[in-house]
Amino acid sequence: MTEAGDKKYIELRRELHAHAETGWTEFWTTARVAGILSSLGYEVLVGKQVLNTGAIMGRPSEDAIAGHIERAISQGADPAWIEKMAGYTGAAGILDTGRPGPVTAFRFDMDAVDVSEARDEKHRPFKEGFASKNAGAMHSCGHDAHMTIGLALAEILMMRKDGLTGIIKLIFQPAEEGVRGGKAVAESGILDDVDWFFGAHIGMGVPTGSISQEAVGFLCTTKFDVTYKGRAAHAGGAPNEGKNALLAACSASLALAGIAPHKDGPTRVNVGFMQAGTGRNVIPADAVMKVETRGSAEAINNYVYDRAMEVVRGAAEMYGVEMTLEQMGAAVDALGDKEAVDIVKAAASESGAFGNLLPPVELGGSEDVSWMIKRVQKGGGKAAYFIIGSNIAAGHHNEYFDLDETVILPSAELMAALAESVAKPA
Amino acid sequence: MTEAGDKKYIELRRELHAHAETGWTEFWTTARVAGILSSLGYEVLVGKQVLNTGAIMGRPSEDAIAGHIERAISQGADPAWIEKMAGYTGAAGILDTGRPGPVTAFRFDMDAVDVSEARDEKHRPFKEGFASKNAGAMHSCGHDAHMTIGLALAEILMMRKDGLTGIIKLIFQPAEEGVRGGKAVAESGILDDVDWFFGAHIGMGVPTGSISQEAVGFLCTTKFDVTYKGRAAHAGGAPNEGKNALLAACSASLALAGIAPHKDGPTRVNVGFMQAGTGRNVIPADAVMKVETRGSAEAINNYVYDRAMEVVRGAAEMYGVEMTLEQMGAAVDALGDKEAVDIVKAAASESGAFGNLLPPVELGGSEDVSWMIKRVQKGGGKAAYFIIGSNIAAGHHNEYFDLDETVILPSAELMAALAESVAKPA
Amino acid sequence: MTEAGDKKYIELRRELHAHAETGWTEFWTTARVAGILSSLGYEVLVGKQVLNTGAIMGRPSEDAIAGHIERAISQGADPAWIEKMAGYTGAAGILDTGRPGPVTAFRFDMDAVDVSEARDEKHRPFKEGFASKNAGAMHSCGHDAHMTIGLALAEILMMRKDGLTGIIKLIFQPAEEGVRGGKAVAESGILDDVDWFFGAHIGMGVPTGSISQEAVGFLCTTKFDVTYKGRAAHAGGAPNEGKNALLAACSASLALAGIAPHKDGPTRVNVGFMQAGTGRNVIPADAVMKVETRGSAEAINNYVYDRAMEVVRGAAEMYGVEMTLEQMGAAVDALGDKEAVDIVKAAASESGAFGNLLPPVELGGSEDVSWMIKRVQKGGGKAAYFIIGSNIAAGHHNEYFDLDETVILPSAELMAALAESVAKPA
Amino acid sequence: MTEAGDKKYIELRRELHAHAETGWTEFWTTARVAGILSSLGYEVLVGKQVLNTGAIMGRPSEDAIAGHIERAISQGADPAWIEKMAGYTGAAGILDTGRPGPVTAFRFDMDAVDVSEARDEKHRPFKEGFASKNAGAMHSCGHDAHMTIGLALAEILMMRKDGLTGIIKLIFQPAEEGVRGGKAVAESGILDDVDWFFGAHIGMGVPTGSISQEAVGFLCTTKFDVTYKGRAAHAGGAPNEGKNALLAACSASLALAGIAPHKDGPTRVNVGFMQAGTGRNVIPADAVMKVETRGSAEAINNYVYDRAMEVVRGAAEMYGVEMTLEQMGAAVDALGDKEAVDIVKAAASESGAFGNLLPPVELGGSEDVSWMIKRVQKGGGKAAYFIIGSNIAAGHHNEYFDLDETVILPSAELMAALAESVAKPA
Repeated sequence: MTEAGDKKYIELRRELHAHAETGWTEFWTTARVAGILSSLGYEVLVGKQVLNTGAIMGRPSEDAIAGHIERAISQGADPAWIEKMAGYTGAAGILDTGRPGPVTAFRFDMDAVDVSEARDEKHRPFKEGFASKNAGAMHSCGHDAHMTIGLALAEILMMRKDGLTGIIKLIFQPAEEGVRGGKAVAESGILDDVDWFFGAHIGMGVPTGSISQEAVGFLCTTKFDVTYKGRAAHAGGAPNEGKNALLAACSASLALAGIAPHKDGPTRVNVGFMQAGTGRNVIPADAVMKVETRGSAEAINNYVYDRAMEVVRGAAEMYGVEMTLEQMGAAVDALGDKEAVDIVKAAASESGAFGNLLPPVELGGSEDVSWMIKRVQKGGGKAAYFIIGSNIAAGHHNEYFDLDETVILPSAELMAALAESVAKPA
Repeated sequence: MTEAGDKKYIELRRELHAHAETGWTEFWTTARVAGILSSLGYEVLVGKQVLNTGAIMGRPSEDAIAGHIERAISQGADPAWIEKMAGYTGAAGILDTGRPGPVTAFRFDMDAVDVSEARDEKHRPFKEGFASKNAGAMHSCGHDAHMTIGLALAEILMMRKDGLTGIIKLIFQPAEEGVRGGKAVAESGILDDVDWFFGAHIGMGVPTGSISQEAVGFLCTTKFDVTYKGRAAHAGGAPNEGKNALLAACSASLALAGIAPHKDGPTRVNVGFMQAGTGRNVIPADAVMKVETRGSAEAINNYVYDRAMEVVRGAAEMYGVEMTLEQMGAAVDALGDKEAVDIVKAAASESGAFGNLLPPVELGGSEDVSWMIKRVQKGGGKAAYFIIGSNIAAGHHNEYFDLDETVILPSAELMAALAESVAKPA
Repeated sequence: MTEAGDKKYIELRRELHAHAETGWTEFWTTARVAGILSSLGYEVLVGKQVLNTGAIMGRPSEDAIAGHIERAISQGADPAWIEKMAGYTGAAGILDTGRPGPVTAFRFDMDAVDVSEARDEKHRPFKEGFASKNAGAMHSCGHDAHMTIGLALAEILMMRKDGLTGIIKLIFQPAEEGVRGGKAVAESGILDDVDWFFGAHIGMGVPTGSISQEAVGFLCTTKFDVTYKGRAAHAGGAPNEGKNALLAACSASLALAGIAPHKDGPTRVNVGFMQAGTGRNVIPADAVMKVETRGSAEAINNYVYDRAMEVVRGAAEMYGVEMTLEQMGAAVDALGDKEAVDIVKAAASESGAFGNLLPPVELGGSEDVSWMIKRVQKGGGKAAYFIIGSNIAAGHHNEYFDLDETVILPSAELMAALAESVAKPA
Repeated sequence: MTEAGDKKYIELRRELHAHAETGWTEFWTTARVAGILSSLGYEVLVGKQVLNTGAIMGRPSEDAIAGHIERAISQGADPAWIEKMAGYTGAAGILDTGRPGPVTAFRFDMDAVDVSEARDEKHRPFKEGFASKNAGAMHSCGHDAHMTIGLALAEILMMRKDGLTGIIKLIFQPAEEGVRGGKAVAESGILDDVDWFFGAHIGMGVPTGSISQEAVGFLCTTKFDVTYKGRAAHAGGAPNEGKNALLAACSASLALAGIAPHKDGPTRVNVGFMQAGTGRNVIPADAVMKVETRGSAEAINNYVYDRAMEVVRGAAEMYGVEMTLEQMGAAVDALGDKEAVDIVKAAASESGAFGNLLPPVELGGSEDVSWMIKRVQKGGGKAAYFIIGSNIAAGHHNEYFDLDETVILPSAELMAALAESVAKPA
């Protein structure tokens, strides 16, 4: 694309950056993405059309959702799209070439992080006026760039439509942070006919001009909230009448931390947050814990998770309190396919923009694209997930995060080349 | 007093009720009390004049104080009094008869409870338009009535000044809730010359028309906040780099609950509130616990408190976290003197309003008037603390609490009779 | 009785002292008691004739019982009585006067304490050669004297038989230590027709020459052992394969200690002993805890016990281990009846030996005579439990414990007077 | 060697097997080894001559040592050697060829395991009459074979002395189980001039006829006992007077289990044994915990150990109890040198007995030969530690463990070949 295109997409990235919305609340964002895809001539699916709602995790309350919809509209979101979404975010653009050929899918994540953006002159988004308008939400992971790449790719593919075959699906996934949305997309059915699947993340320590052929070491993880409900009582006057949810949570936390390691690989468990009780002189009747388990393979994470369930249930029984458990997120382990990774390597080599081809990068964390990779592979398709180099101003999730916008358009071009590799006419 | 007086003081109680302010933020309230005392001809002391600031516990941050001062002024508090207070609430009115005689003191507490008042037609203060204007603050313990009794007493005593001797001190104490202010008043010196000291609480299960000669069973208590400061780290990527404040707080909480009982009397310890950590995937770097200890005597509470200190310090060491401790409140045990109690009994018998004289009531809780009683007794004075009967609409500290306003003026008359008993001319 | 009688019974006490046997293993002792009662002309019941075996608590293994029987025989126990006992200790002597009258019962406990007697010249039983022959068993509570008083009483009553009416039952109870045997005797039915019931303890701080009319403040208590069975695994090589019984016991212990106190009276809970695990490098597969709960009333002890059950079951679930619970002892609260206490007071006043009549003594502990008192009272009978003064050489249960033998015969005379008071001819 | 030699050494192995002695109590064993070495013409060092006593860990009490010496003598140990040992086990045989050349050392461990040998006809040592005479001690790890190989090697080397150069040291190390003795030997100085060091273990899953060139994956570990000393008190009558060592140990155990994993490699921590308290109704005054930490590298084990120290000290402070810590064992990580490993590979290839050369075996545990390997390497020497194949009847440390005695003599021949490789005349 031209320099004008470059400028247009940098502006689009900044617009998305300014309207940062956290997981399951990407209403302004989804409306904007859907509008562009539609205007380019794509068939557009939104909300429940791309989600299995039974597999949604960590969705805010309906009240909170309603508030975010209001905000999106007040910030200019197209009410027609908002109505089509019917409370659920996420979108997909479908391009049917009309020619026989493979189904090729690309995935872009949409949500911002629960971070308040730095308001500091040394932070470019603030200095140049495109910092997040929304308190407590910031694109400090780079999903704004991911979506921009996806929309630029949409334009390029539509322009080059006549040189492509089969069907192309551009999937914009909500709620990647906390690994909450990937499973719902994977189980929606939208991937069940996919032959080639590509995903990518920007940054991750890979500098501008480089690319890493594959991210590996996805950790399996489960995120859940435990709520204990006991009974309040005056701590001085009638302590025996209370049921102490705080102590239940404390017993559970110590035992969760003490889950034995696994002989076959690393495990992790963390109670990252606890709140319990109200007044100093009241036996605490409520407690909530935010917990996550991890394991280097599904069986190992399952071991930790199963032990965690024993612990949190047993602690409830110890203190006579009621327990509710809410699944808040999950990701599995996943590995790309050699065939698809080789295509990424070849396209990158031919690209002028990514001269430096790096070996696989250890993710050392979790990504819910893993659900999609596994779903595609289950149906016989091939997948790759790679890392796009981009210099970053601060670590991912940091309030000073910023990225190198010059890599956006070359990334879209690279993905177009991937589509052309697998969906070229015979 | 006349019916007009009755009406005036009911209106004053309602005005105070509508301007409920919690401990150490009684700026509007102090200004109003001081203004009335001054207009009646009392010498008026405010703020640090009635407080030993070194003994203040549980005072909000200076920022919060500043906000409350602003609100008080915006609600019409007299700026001249606000300026005299210099950031500290509480007041005393001094009446010097000019005649030799004893020093007689009365104590009234001023603060509201951290409760949001019911907004419900069945709740009279809401229905009749005098519910608290201040969110999260409500006179649901009856201190509004206490102050009103004190101001009515002020008027009566000034009218009957010529029949009295010695000096009379009407002390309006801030921050009784959480037993935070009593010690600062006791150690200010204002009580050091007091010969007779009287305090009272309204309600407490005693119905209108009755009076209980004495409250007994004051529990000694100490209130404190423990803050642990550890070090955050990514729970998946570098768990060994964290210092886990949440687990320290959990270990401490279990051990605090397990402090052995005392052979000589009941003990209590409660962690009423805990908050720890931030994100689910971060080793929690911070934790705060709100704790209280109790014992039926000072030595017993000291035993529990000393054990609690071992526990919270040891838990910090176990997890390598820093600890800070803030004293948030304290009360001691106290017993009235037979001489003073007998005077209450005699005055109540002669009063037409309190025909039913009940035996001592078990307080089963803590009251920081205990610091004042002990201070007076230490100086050789005599004290009594009694319960004024009043039907109540719901339990103390409940959002539907209301009281029987018809007892206000008779209570002021009863206290005037107490003054006349001890400070009558020879 | 004469001086010769005095000497005879001191020698008997020393013989019993030398053959100290702990709870449920009083085979030599039961045979000796039964032999004497029989030779005096009493109908004698032993073992299951005086026990409801379904209510037995804390009985050693059959192997251990067999070993103790062997030892008893080797120490000269009469094999005929041993055979009649059929493995169960305890005895009763029945004297039927043949004349209409009340049923009157006296209770004497038989077992020694798990203490190794001091082997020290300053300890009289050692110096004078009547220290316990049995390692780890010592009459350091005074039950040797209780039985001696009972046997002297048997002789006196038989001599004075013609002045008595009704039926007299002298009950020798096994296993009072750890409150294990009282319930089994109470539920055997032997007390169901009793009109007057008397029991006593020697010493307890009351000096020679004094008597306390009544022991009060019996604490309800429950004693139980909790065993957790998990699964061993190599702690280095396969930690995830273990099920950690040690950690389950630790979680349970902390939570047991933290059971909230009760508003209505003192509570206690103690894990007095724990053993868990085997080798340092093995995940501990076994743990045992010895626990007791107490409360100042049955409802209060029940509250603590019920909470303890929640705790020990919940901890088992937390760690995926199996739990077994064994009831090891129990006592209830009990109060004597004024009618019976008054008879004790009257008899003591008339006795030359107990000139100093003391008010009720606070027991501050548990005694399983409480089961018998309640059983008698349930059937309409009257009971008293008093304290016989005796100077002691060291505290009860101490390895240097010894008592003043001169009080033995006067105590038997006092009890005979009680029988004569209630069972005298019309 | 001949068939006669084979028979002789099988009988020697059985004799050693029958006299199994656990760590630091190998008195009979040391005397037997020293006697043979001496009779072969070796200079013999025993006890403190091969130990730095300051580095000894986990040695039994002097009383226990005295008892084991008595037993050794009663079982026929040579009193002259016993006297030379002066209470300390372990031996070395020195062969000085008189010719210039390298110093070459071999290491054999001597101690038995704390296991009671199976008394079962299907267990050959029992059936054939050479099971351990010593209750609770069994050569169920194969150290009996190790020593036999060493003594056969001694005979072979002495026969072939004229074909060797330099000095050869045959080191018999006490107390390998629990990794208690290796450090004391390493720090004795005996290895400081060693150029070539060889050690081996029999079995470990490698079958007869095979050999594994090298054992890898030594885990660093620290073994320690923690003792808490509190204060006993009656749990019912004076609970506040106790200092509860049991609860301190429970708090510590939960926190030890919860030490966060390390990002750089596996960690382990285990409380394998706990005993606390005495009577059910006594506040527990004593507790002991047997603990071990592990890490895949020294820095990682140090991290776990340092955290463990914080935990056990903090728990002591929490409960006001005194703590004592005793180091009971330790091992480090170690890797062989390629030069030495290559010599093992070459000799094994040439040997007829070990035709199957296997790759490195993951030890997945700890071995205190690691201290010696590191000491030799520090002085510039080269080391190898390999696994001698032998079919085994049951797992190491199992009560049915037995090994294939036919590998003993070939192993000695192999080691002789190693000596000849490095210490051959120029």
